[in-house]
Amino acid sequence: MNAEILTIGDEILIGQITNTNSVWIAQQLNLIGVKVVHMASVADDEKAIVDAFDAAQKRADFVFITGGLGPTKDDITKKTFSKYFNAELILDDEVLKQVSSFFIKRGREVTEINRNQALVPKGCFIINNLNGTAPGMWMKKNNTVFISLPGVPYEMKAMITDGVLPKLVAENKFPNIYHKTVLTNGIGESALAELIESWEDNLINKNIKLAYLPQPGMVRLRLSSTGPNLEDLKKNIESEIENLKIIIHKYIFGYENYGQETPSLAKIVSELLRENKKTVALAESCTGGYIASLFTSIAGASDIFKGAIVPYTNEAKHNLLQVDESVFSSVGAVSKECVEQLAKNVLNKFGSDFSIAVSGVAGPTGGTDEKPVGTVWIAVSSKEKTLAFKFIFGDDRQRNIVMTSQTALNLLRKLVLKEA
Amino acid sequence: MNAEILTIGDEILIGQITNTNSVWIAQQLNLIGVKVVHMASVADDEKAIVDAFDAAQKRADFVFITGGLGPTKDDITKKTFSKYFNAELILDDEVLKQVSSFFIKRGREVTEINRNQALVPKGCFIINNLNGTAPGMWMKKNNTVFISLPGVPYEMKAMITDGVLPKLVAENKFPNIYHKTVLTNGIGESALAELIESWEDNLINKNIKLAYLPQPGMVRLRLSSTGPNLEDLKKNIESEIENLKIIIHKYIFGYENYGQETPSLAKIVSELLRENKKTVALAESCTGGYIASLFTSIAGASDIFKGAIVPYTNEAKHNLLQVDESVFSSVGAVSKECVEQLAKNVLNKFGSDFSIAVSGVAGPTGGTDEKPVGTVWIAVSSKEKTLAFKFIFGDDRQRNIVMTSQTALNLLRKLVLKEA
Repeated sequence: MNAEILTIGDEILIGQITNTNSVWIAQQLNLIGVKVVHMASVADDEKAIVDAFDAAQKRADFVFITGGLGPTKDDITKKTFSKYFNAELILDDEVLKQVSSFFIKRGREVTEINRNQALVPKGCFIINNLNGTAPGMWMKKNNTVFISLPGVPYEMKAMITDGVLPKLVAENKFPNIYHKTVLTNGIGESALAELIESWEDNLINKNIKLAYLPQPGMVRLRLSSTGPNLEDLKKNIESEIENLKIIIHKYIFGYENYGQETPSLAKIVSELLRENKKTVALAESCTGGYIASLFTSIAGASDIFKGAIVPYTNEAKHNLLQVDESVFSSVGAVSKECVEQLAKNVLNKFGSDFSIAVSGVAGPTGGTDEKPVGTVWIAVSSKEKTLAFKFIFGDDRQRNIVMTSQTALNLLRKLVLKEA
Repeated sequence: MNAEILTIGDEILIGQITNTNSVWIAQQLNLIGVKVVHMASVADDEKAIVDAFDAAQKRADFVFITGGLGPTKDDITKKTFSKYFNAELILDDEVLKQVSSFFIKRGREVTEINRNQALVPKGCFIINNLNGTAPGMWMKKNNTVFISLPGVPYEMKAMITDGVLPKLVAENKFPNIYHKTVLTNGIGESALAELIESWEDNLINKNIKLAYLPQPGMVRLRLSSTGPNLEDLKKNIESEIENLKIIIHKYIFGYENYGQETPSLAKIVSELLRENKKTVALAESCTGGYIASLFTSIAGASDIFKGAIVPYTNEAKHNLLQVDESVFSSVGAVSKECVEQLAKNVLNKFGSDFSIAVSGVAGPTGGTDEKPVGTVWIAVSSKEKTLAFKFIFGDDRQRNIVMTSQTALNLLRKLVLKEA
């Protein structure tokens, strides 16, 4: 079955906001085996909306529409929707109750303009909106289902997850589909492709599709399969992942299961530390606080994160973290000696079980022949041992910061697991 | 004049990548006064592409197409483009030279598949691609100009900026348009709207449009005007900004000039410190390294940034930054006393001219009746004085981190400018 995603709003066409709704909806539909054949964005303009409805109806079994459901005059999706279906707008008591309670909870008055949010086209199936005031609407025309939802991402997402997808799956016979994604760090996309070439070639016989999803510091490998029996698909994919592990075990740091969000390396390491009741501290020079911000963006970070020192000058490395001054004059701050001392001393300072230390040339300037831009030393330390590694990433400052952080997190993961 | 943006690629429709090309192109076109009336995304599929071309041709004077120009078999935009225009593909010597030099520079061989990148439809105007191998193509059909560009953002952006826009502006008579954006911090969108209501009402007489562009920790106000004389437009907008300053001077932290990227608060503060040859150090509790990462993401940060300590536990606040233990037992770590001591001590530790210290309840848990989630204390300090302020942001952890960071940066800006 085919779907189309239509996002409505002037703010999209003037480039004021990035359309993230379409990509999220596409992911959800892809997961249940519905193919998205077209995406479009149009302005808050009746003719543009109707033309888009007509075009979509010819292409798709399901049309997902977001945006234009606010209470102000510029939002015309609901009016256009009811006109398109030739259905008058009537007040829905259930929706009115919900809208009223939404305002009452927040200590605000229910104005006339808010009451109008409870108007829906006669005959439409209502998708409840627990996080806002605009109800979702589900109507059918010539075998095409139109589903209109608010453009506010967290309202729309909850309505799709809790209202739309269950109804869609219950009413239709979609092919069974199973995905599992293998998360890797420490190897680039093309090197990975070469390494697993013969394993990959074999997947076609197993009716498994493979997608490479690269991003800085991580390549995700998504295996998908479609067929009559979900248990068979799952068994098939799990068994191929076992075969894959034999080849690339040392690069795999986690998995993303069917329907889950991709867990970040920081999250995987945080959970590993939490399970083991261990803590970490950081000495971040070239990443400048980025690794700390990854750990602390996760709720509950204080269980596992003791803190960080960002010693951005040699003086600070010496004064705050007792790196020997002779290190700077002999081998420099971007060196094995420096990160080893930083890692050991930051662990002692915070009294943590583990530590990470990084020092490098993030760029775009500061490189030398001996240590070009992108040269980074990373050390990870436990109370028992300290390991240091050298990397040469690339020319781009931001990318170097991300690559260094991801690599350091994965080294710590291995140390905690006693694999390093 | 109207434009349409068409992005081509399976990876968009399966939700593998967020389409950021469309929003960027829309912004560029908006800046020169071209209205985007439609955006669409289709798969790497001939029929889908041709249908989209046909539909776009009816709506738009200019169709911007990105994607599907890679050398592999799944990319079919160029083949479809030449078929659509009934123009055979011919080898272009200039493009071939460029493609060859691209590979030679990188020490790689020019294979047959790479040579094919130099094939272009007969009669097309070529847009040079200095960052990759796929040339851009500009062709006209029934008064509609089709411009096909690679999907790789940095290749496409350079080609639009250096090749497409100058040609577009030279060949067409677009209305003169002038924008200037006022950057504010410390006031929400609706409070701001109330404050400047009568000023805003007056803009219509001056033929100036106002857009509110809110994001966490910042509301941008964009003034735009269209007319026959660019100097008049500029004078008009600058004079209205002078009037605006009288009302909201204390919230304005910067400006974004016509055609420039929005400068971040971290960038504005960094430049201010650099101009004054001053340095900063940070003690970040609830922001957990985020402010440090904002400073250090900017090239040349070491001129102005001495470093940071992220004391995520009370123990670390005491051991590393000498906060009196009595503070924790009396008023707690989220307090005026705590951030004042942190700010003073981190300034001394790093020997910096200025410092920021933050401590708060980022959430989602850890709130109390007295200090609910979102409560944050921020101190900024120079060698002469230390100022502390209390804020109550919201429920969302990530948003609280961003709001705290932006607010702290703006307080530091005022301190450096002696406005605080």
